[in-house]
Amino acid sequence: MSKVRMKGFMETMEVNEALKRFFEALPPIKQRHELVSLNESLNRVLAVDIVSKVDIPTFDKAAMDGYAVVASDTFGASQTNPVTLRVLGEVAMGEPPRFNIGKGQAVAVTTGGPIPSGADAVVMLEYAKKVIEGEVEVYTAVTPGDNLSKVGEDVAEGDVVLRKGTVLKPQDVGILAALGFSRIKVVVKPRIGVLSTGSELVEIGTPLQSGKTINVNNLILSMMVTELGGTSVNLGTAGDNQDEIKCGISKGLVEADVVVITGGTSVGKTDLVPEVINTLGKPGMIVHGVSMRPGKPTGLAVIDGIPVVSLSGYPVAAMMGFNTFVRPLILKLLGTVGELTPRVRARLVRRVASTTGIRVFLRVKVRKRVEQYVAEPLRSTGSGVLSSMVQANGIVVIPESREGFEAGEEVEVLLFRPVEIEGDG
Amino acid sequence: MSKVRMKGFMETMEVNEALKRFFEALPPIKQRHELVSLNESLNRVLAVDIVSKVDIPTFDKAAMDGYAVVASDTFGASQTNPVTLRVLGEVAMGEPPRFNIGKGQAVAVTTGGPIPSGADAVVMLEYAKKVIEGEVEVYTAVTPGDNLSKVGEDVAEGDVVLRKGTVLKPQDVGILAALGFSRIKVVVKPRIGVLSTGSELVEIGTPLQSGKTINVNNLILSMMVTELGGTSVNLGTAGDNQDEIKCGISKGLVEADVVVITGGTSVGKTDLVPEVINTLGKPGMIVHGVSMRPGKPTGLAVIDGIPVVSLSGYPVAAMMGFNTFVRPLILKLLGTVGELTPRVRARLVRRVASTTGIRVFLRVKVRKRVEQYVAEPLRSTGSGVLSSMVQANGIVVIPESREGFEAGEEVEVLLFRPVEIEGDG
Repeated sequence: MSKVRMKGFMETMEVNEALKRFFEALPPIKQRHELVSLNESLNRVLAVDIVSKVDIPTFDKAAMDGYAVVASDTFGASQTNPVTLRVLGEVAMGEPPRFNIGKGQAVAVTTGGPIPSGADAVVMLEYAKKVIEGEVEVYTAVTPGDNLSKVGEDVAEGDVVLRKGTVLKPQDVGILAALGFSRIKVVVKPRIGVLSTGSELVEIGTPLQSGKTINVNNLILSMMVTELGGTSVNLGTAGDNQDEIKCGISKGLVEADVVVITGGTSVGKTDLVPEVINTLGKPGMIVHGVSMRPGKPTGLAVIDGIPVVSLSGYPVAAMMGFNTFVRPLILKLLGTVGELTPRVRARLVRRVASTTGIRVFLRVKVRKRVEQYVAEPLRSTGSGVLSSMVQANGIVVIPESREGFEAGEEVEVLLFRPVEIEGDG
Repeated sequence: MSKVRMKGFMETMEVNEALKRFFEALPPIKQRHELVSLNESLNRVLAVDIVSKVDIPTFDKAAMDGYAVVASDTFGASQTNPVTLRVLGEVAMGEPPRFNIGKGQAVAVTTGGPIPSGADAVVMLEYAKKVIEGEVEVYTAVTPGDNLSKVGEDVAEGDVVLRKGTVLKPQDVGILAALGFSRIKVVVKPRIGVLSTGSELVEIGTPLQSGKTINVNNLILSMMVTELGGTSVNLGTAGDNQDEIKCGISKGLVEADVVVITGGTSVGKTDLVPEVINTLGKPGMIVHGVSMRPGKPTGLAVIDGIPVVSLSGYPVAAMMGFNTFVRPLILKLLGTVGELTPRVRARLVRRVASTTGIRVFLRVKVRKRVEQYVAEPLRSTGSGVLSSMVQANGIVVIPESREGFEAGEEVEVLLFRPVEIEGDG
């Protein structure tokens, strides 16, 4: 007998090696920046370091309602032995202070309002009592700086307030506003083209019928792109023929920074994607077949400087391939380390077997039993069984070095949904 | 001497008791639902249980490219002893199968395509070889079910696929598409009105000037609302006078499901918010002063069934008050447990003192040193020091039962930013 291949891929490449070769084949990242208003900057990636040109607060501020005083005037004051000060007036909120305070004098101030010059502390309202018009009794001693926000207490001129690459959280946007910004330079969202292939695919909302499959990959991957801070570009669905696939990828090469394709990446006769990629430009396919499960048929390519990732048509495999190869690419384009994945250490309730040399992404359901987290591997593990990703709340990665995990072994779970608490928890 | 109060609040209420009284004073939640297209459903909260009315796949599908066969025909087949089958033809992708397979027969099939009736397994292309037109040699034995996706393998009719209250992730939206949905019923985003008070406040983008403070709270809280899945309603900024505050809150009572106010909630003479709230309806203020730091002056109120939360004007205190009281309210309105907060156990590098009976929200910077996480409490802890929330990457909650934590003690940190890895990590 002749050339019967014993497996779909004679050789697959380990994930880290595949990632390395893929990234090495990419041209240097040319990051684009844009100015956006602060209102639109939540979760955008900051493009520049922010060094403060000002002090915040810009003026000494009352941190409490009360009286601005010269602290030394209050030394020795107590509930039984108050000190009487002359009140010059009141600082109107939102106005620069009009007073200069000298010994024996006080000015009424309001939280957040400016402190008149000459004052070095605030006596809280609760420790002061107006006895007659123009006079206040102070029942406590304060030391210089008490109940004040000093100039630069929050941010001092020259402070590096935020580093480029920061994913902007509400407080970051808040401090940018406090520094006087109304717009901010962020990294342009990378455009990720998503193309589905498969003559059996029909669009969402089409009545279910024999022989047809609703195209869910496009929607799933577009949403994964959005979650990561990219913009998805819908490249539509191509039938299993070279022309349609070529047309879809070509469109992506023009309109997107990265092209992601699902389906047609294996070694069957309708698996035309790698072939088409190689006709479209150099260097073409760099990796075809990765030692991971699910996701083995993943292909990694570069066409004239544009990264192209060819994922399985099976939704779970496509998701794992996306997380493994497209996610780090998007983060690299954004110049950030990305959001945190919640993790938990849990005990496996059942043994899981794996093969050395293959990275396995195990879908698990984590529960909390009393003070312990337990992870139950899902039984339906087919890479087409999308419901497994719906039932699971986490992923356990079995590394290439392991032949699986034992029942009772503690593993790290990457969580993508809340953990149910059993009993009292 | 007479009524000098020794502290801003003679009595404050513990957080859990405050939450309990606040929620008890609220009328039952009337959740509103709306239909949205699947494209717009990411991170929305599912309003109904989804029970499948169909099997997915709806037909037996090839899981590999190859030949659909009667498995028993292949028994005994091997590389050295192939079995020859007659090929009836090929199933065109996207078409219902036109064949019936009998003993000794095979039909070429493609991954994802339907299996002809009579067949019960697929022989992978790699184990088959077309020798002459209309005949294939099979070099391996298959058992029934091999390389097939059976009807209902992913989802069976009657399965509860998703529970109401689920925050829809990409795979959830994908499975809804697979089930035939194009729109889905989700919970209407609660509208959270945000009002700032303070005559010193100026809007974002105003040049910095003495006596004025840029209003950052409105922006920060609006973004926190967005992150939680609510819609923020900007109620603007009210000066420190009853009329403007009353006008702002009244607007919120009409336009929003919850009203959040910053500033004016303490006990100074410009702290008019609690007073105004009590004039606007019953029961009015329920809690004023909470045993937490920062966030002590937080007030909780209900006006004619609408929850009203009065937060400190200090940004950090406002954020902590929001997380403690507004977050659970938004999640309750949405009917969900919300997103996961990444957590990590870390050793405190320094002792932190606290007071029994007060819940303290400690801002920390977590780093990873070799295999250990360490948390360094920030030194600037003023509730006006917003930069502390920018420098920190996590919060440690010191519970009411503790007088602080010792240096070296292991604590749980709620992370809101990635952890820096020092050295090799």
